[in-house]
Amino acid sequence: MRAFNFSAGPATLPTDVITQVQRELPDWRGTGMSVMELSHRSPEFAGILAEAELDLRELLAIPDHYRVVFCQEGASAHWDMIPLNLLQGNTRADYIETGYWSYRAIEEGRRYCNVNIAASNRVDQFCAIPDPREWRLDSKAAYVHYCSNETIDGLEFFSIPDVGKVPLVVDMSSHFLSRPVDISKFGLIYAGAQKNIGPAGLSIAIIRDDLLKPAAPGTPFLMNYHGQVHAHSMLNTPPTFTIWVAGLVFQWIKRQGGLRAMERINTQKSRVMYDFLDSSEFYRSRVRHQDRSRMNVPFHLRELSLDEVFLKEAASHGLHQLRGHRVVGGMRASIYNAMPMEGVNALVSFMADFERRYG
Amino acid sequence: MRAFNFSAGPATLPTDVITQVQRELPDWRGTGMSVMELSHRSPEFAGILAEAELDLRELLAIPDHYRVVFCQEGASAHWDMIPLNLLQGNTRADYIETGYWSYRAIEEGRRYCNVNIAASNRVDQFCAIPDPREWRLDSKAAYVHYCSNETIDGLEFFSIPDVGKVPLVVDMSSHFLSRPVDISKFGLIYAGAQKNIGPAGLSIAIIRDDLLKPAAPGTPFLMNYHGQVHAHSMLNTPPTFTIWVAGLVFQWIKRQGGLRAMERINTQKSRVMYDFLDSSEFYRSRVRHQDRSRMNVPFHLRELSLDEVFLKEAASHGLHQLRGHRVVGGMRASIYNAMPMEGVNALVSFMADFERRYG
Repeated sequence: MRAFNFSAGPATLPTDVITQVQRELPDWRGTGMSVMELSHRSPEFAGILAEAELDLRELLAIPDHYRVVFCQEGASAHWDMIPLNLLQGNTRADYIETGYWSYRAIEEGRRYCNVNIAASNRVDQFCAIPDPREWRLDSKAAYVHYCSNETIDGLEFFSIPDVGKVPLVVDMSSHFLSRPVDISKFGLIYAGAQKNIGPAGLSIAIIRDDLLKPAAPGTPFLMNYHGQVHAHSMLNTPPTFTIWVAGLVFQWIKRQGGLRAMERINTQKSRVMYDFLDSSEFYRSRVRHQDRSRMNVPFHLRELSLDEVFLKEAASHGLHQLRGHRVVGGMRASIYNAMPMEGVNALVSFMADFERRYG
Repeated sequence: MRAFNFSAGPATLPTDVITQVQRELPDWRGTGMSVMELSHRSPEFAGILAEAELDLRELLAIPDHYRVVFCQEGASAHWDMIPLNLLQGNTRADYIETGYWSYRAIEEGRRYCNVNIAASNRVDQFCAIPDPREWRLDSKAAYVHYCSNETIDGLEFFSIPDVGKVPLVVDMSSHFLSRPVDISKFGLIYAGAQKNIGPAGLSIAIIRDDLLKPAAPGTPFLMNYHGQVHAHSMLNTPPTFTIWVAGLVFQWIKRQGGLRAMERINTQKSRVMYDFLDSSEFYRSRVRHQDRSRMNVPFHLRELSLDEVFLKEAASHGLHQLRGHRVVGGMRASIYNAMPMEGVNALVSFMADFERRYG
């Protein structure tokens, strides 16, 4: 039986994609080889990579003056790559703190430049997004960095902040491809694969042309966006199998109707979750209503002592990986693109039943 | 029909492993999830990672005072990681030049320190390994770097050079796990996965305890061996699926009888190739006999104009990816662990027949 897997990442993949990977695994299109065995310089893999990029461009309507790079390492490599590539001699950058992941980026950024935390919700215990009209931005900053979905804290930006002429840089890992986004508002977008893209071991960056300049001296060559763009993501052997699976996920999203369709279903799924949480005295969500993530739904049981029973019983109902991240505790249901409505319904039914029995 | 794939990497994998990956892909051990979907923090993946490391330690008889790290990125990331982690304030390092890949490491090393090329076979057109007794080593160097198998040029070191007390650092990518190696002779060993380990998007480093010190200031945090060791290869989400497949390859090698058995069959396979090349006037191998790689067999046709015909006919016989690397031209047969003797026999039969028809 297929489990409902609420992991924040590596996360559940579309069942159709797993079936296709299994079917095509030993012999890709009559080559007599697995995609894992194709040379990255072969025309076959070149086709896989080109198709993945084209499909991604179509899904996100990426303008022509933006480049797409497929990187190894996850999103966190970009915490270093961004200052190394975008500072260009400047010593100042703006960062917005909204939770765990934006703070990790800040910590890394501080190693390269004077970080101005232009806004923070730390005093609000990361429960609400600071109003962009009150951000104390530095017009001389090399860039403004923020995280548009805090995977652990469960906050999501539903509009793109206006930061004037300074390039806007965003960690979009955990809501990438969950809804349409106006790429032209950004200087650089990056996202780790293991949420809505594919297996772990890959990240994607989308970079506006004018920001592509050689990185700071001493930058490890693989961390140079400029170099990766010029090498078509092949400065070294790319993670070929992972890129193939990512491409299959892009095709699956297209078959579902693209990002507008994903947004519709994701809105429905998250509404079912939050409506249930709000109707209950037994569970609670700490996040301000308008900032609640559609992808990651953290919640707490009123009785902390019931956490382990909850997790154990959930697992016995085929509902897995609901434990919250260690820094916030409690529970978290990650309901990415590949989580079907049935999974959310099954979770809510179980939670209601659990509440009746233990509430 | 399963192709014989002579690609230098990503390379052919053991058929048994591909069959197992296919079988277990949608539901790993009754979890209802693919390994691609397992959280890297789950006990299931922790078990996969621990087992992979244990099997690797057993295969290579890795002493207890060496640490194993599974890194994202390929081997080439280590060209930067090595100086960033091992210089420790020293400004000098020794490098041995024996071909394309050792030269790439030199180029990167020069960005961080004064590189002393202690030996080079450039004047010999990379056809023989310089005698280690004649290396002009610097006793004050932070380390000595060499590449023990030149994938493109087809040279392999069959003994480990004695460099005294300076730590010996080796790129072992393309003969890793092809035969037993005395790990205790090395300070640091690194290898990219996509030859004898598994799919692309992973590399492995084996590091002697005393060399694990915090990296140079400004080193991107993922490039810190010390940090990766302390985080058990989980400074960020590791490439979980790729590590799983690598572990299956390790188990496959154990079932074949371990590295002594691999060495026996690899010696046989390469002997069939070189004996044939030496018996022919039509094909030639440039490499000095005692330095010929057992893994990568480059050769040229006497008539350059026949290259394309050769490749086309070979492919029609199910013999693929025989084109040599663009920097040396000609042909190359990579015959890693997973290439069966039948593949080598089929190639040699085809080559003999081709010679009869075109020679």
